[in-house]
Amino acid sequence: MTIKAIVFDAYGTLYDVQSVAHATEAAFPGQGETITQIWRMKQLEYTWLRSGMCAYVDFWTVTRDSLAYTLAVLGLPAEDGAIEALADAYNHLTLYPDSLGALDALAGGRLAILSNGSPAMLDALVANSAVGGHFEAVLSVDAAGVYKPDPRSYRLVEEHLGVAPAEVVFVSSNGFDVAGGKRFGFKVARIARVSPAALHAEIASVAPIPPRTLFKALRMQEERLGETPDWTIGSLGELPALLGA
Amino acid sequence: MTIKAIVFDAYGTLYDVQSVAHATEAAFPGQGETITQIWRMKQLEYTWLRSGMCAYVDFWTVTRDSLAYTLAVLGLPAEDGAIEALADAYNHLTLYPDSLGALDALAGGRLAILSNGSPAMLDALVANSAVGGHFEAVLSVDAAGVYKPDPRSYRLVEEHLGVAPAEVVFVSSNGFDVAGGKRFGFKVARIARVSPAALHAEIASVAPIPPRTLFKALRMQEERLGETPDWTIGSLGELPALLGA
Repeated sequence: MTIKAIVFDAYGTLYDVQSVAHATEAAFPGQGETITQIWRMKQLEYTWLRSGMCAYVDFWTVTRDSLAYTLAVLGLPAEDGAIEALADAYNHLTLYPDSLGALDALAGGRLAILSNGSPAMLDALVANSAVGGHFEAVLSVDAAGVYKPDPRSYRLVEEHLGVAPAEVVFVSSNGFDVAGGKRFGFKVARIARVSPAALHAEIASVAPIPPRTLFKALRMQEERLGETPDWTIGSLGELPALLGA
Repeated sequence: MTIKAIVFDAYGTLYDVQSVAHATEAAFPGQGETITQIWRMKQLEYTWLRSGMCAYVDFWTVTRDSLAYTLAVLGLPAEDGAIEALADAYNHLTLYPDSLGALDALAGGRLAILSNGSPAMLDALVANSAVGGHFEAVLSVDAAGVYKPDPRSYRLVEEHLGVAPAEVVFVSSNGFDVAGGKRFGFKVARIARVSPAALHAEIASVAPIPPRTLFKALRMQEERLGETPDWTIGSLGELPALLGA
């Protein structure tokens, strides 16, 4: 197998989207977890629907729209300035504990990010986490005007790095992205940081299932979309050994 | 305004998708509500993702795949035969109490259904509820090979009925479908059977929010997708007066 580039998803793979919970909880005490979960779910839904409707707007708009929706669902006030301030939490996500070590270990290869984030959001994210030096390219689907898992978004990798899909290892923890990348032709490593057994135990321990537990279980479950990743690993830390780096 | 046809969404608009809860509860006592909610959410997600990945499979496959996903999330057994049997509940949905009266009152006009359902599922649904005589056409997106809100799905109305989008009143309770139909060019009536105030009161009365309440609130909230319906009404019963029928 010839691997010429390793391309990472950003939100949920390198960066912990749950880290916005500090900001949502500070803004709406007692409701932070629920807001965080609905917001993320709706943010993704809006990317798929905007692509489907042929009505692309960038991820910064989607992030604010999905937050406005979330606050309206819960009957919370949602003034434009407050939405903007809270949405900024997505520009300050923390790296997962396993991200930096994996990037360091893979530093000899060609590394890139392919993300739904707008160029400005990705610039902020990479700068705030000081990992810009690790990446040859930070690619935003904005250049394609369509979101993952549309194949036109994945095609940006070939266009910018000059590598064929089969020469790319694409790394994502998001089930739809794993399926989309695999269908496009990438080799795909799925990151599953929580085991199904642990999730089942957590679900069985509480009724009714609270939003945090429910959405975590939904995120961690492999999707039934007709595609199977080449590898499923529990941490980015397993990636260097897997790829012989 | 010249209205030449009234086109209804099926699942969630004419037919109550929550009516599968009898079957899910019978199959998995105590878990029926949670299964019903996750199943419906995932069923829709898979339509959007299959369209996005250019990997269409029909709605019967999507319905079984999303049920298999749901049972796996909850750690419940999911054998193929049992999946098939439970998924059949989607062929026996009950009409909403306001559906039949509205169809009767509108019987002088040209009425149709445009649905994600596969042709076989729609045949079963219409036959089991004995409303076939009301519709000039029951259209499945299967003929377009892509799901709502892709514009190619809505185009089937023009192709089959010979009416321009602006001459059609499209009726849906699904937020993504309201936005997609409006963007396509239909006049759109959004059905909102529960008021935001009632939902906020229900949410505020319980913590953490149980899945049933949470997903109902999510379904009933208007989407932020850049489109506004021409009318929002609380029941299909208001439709005849609205359209001067």
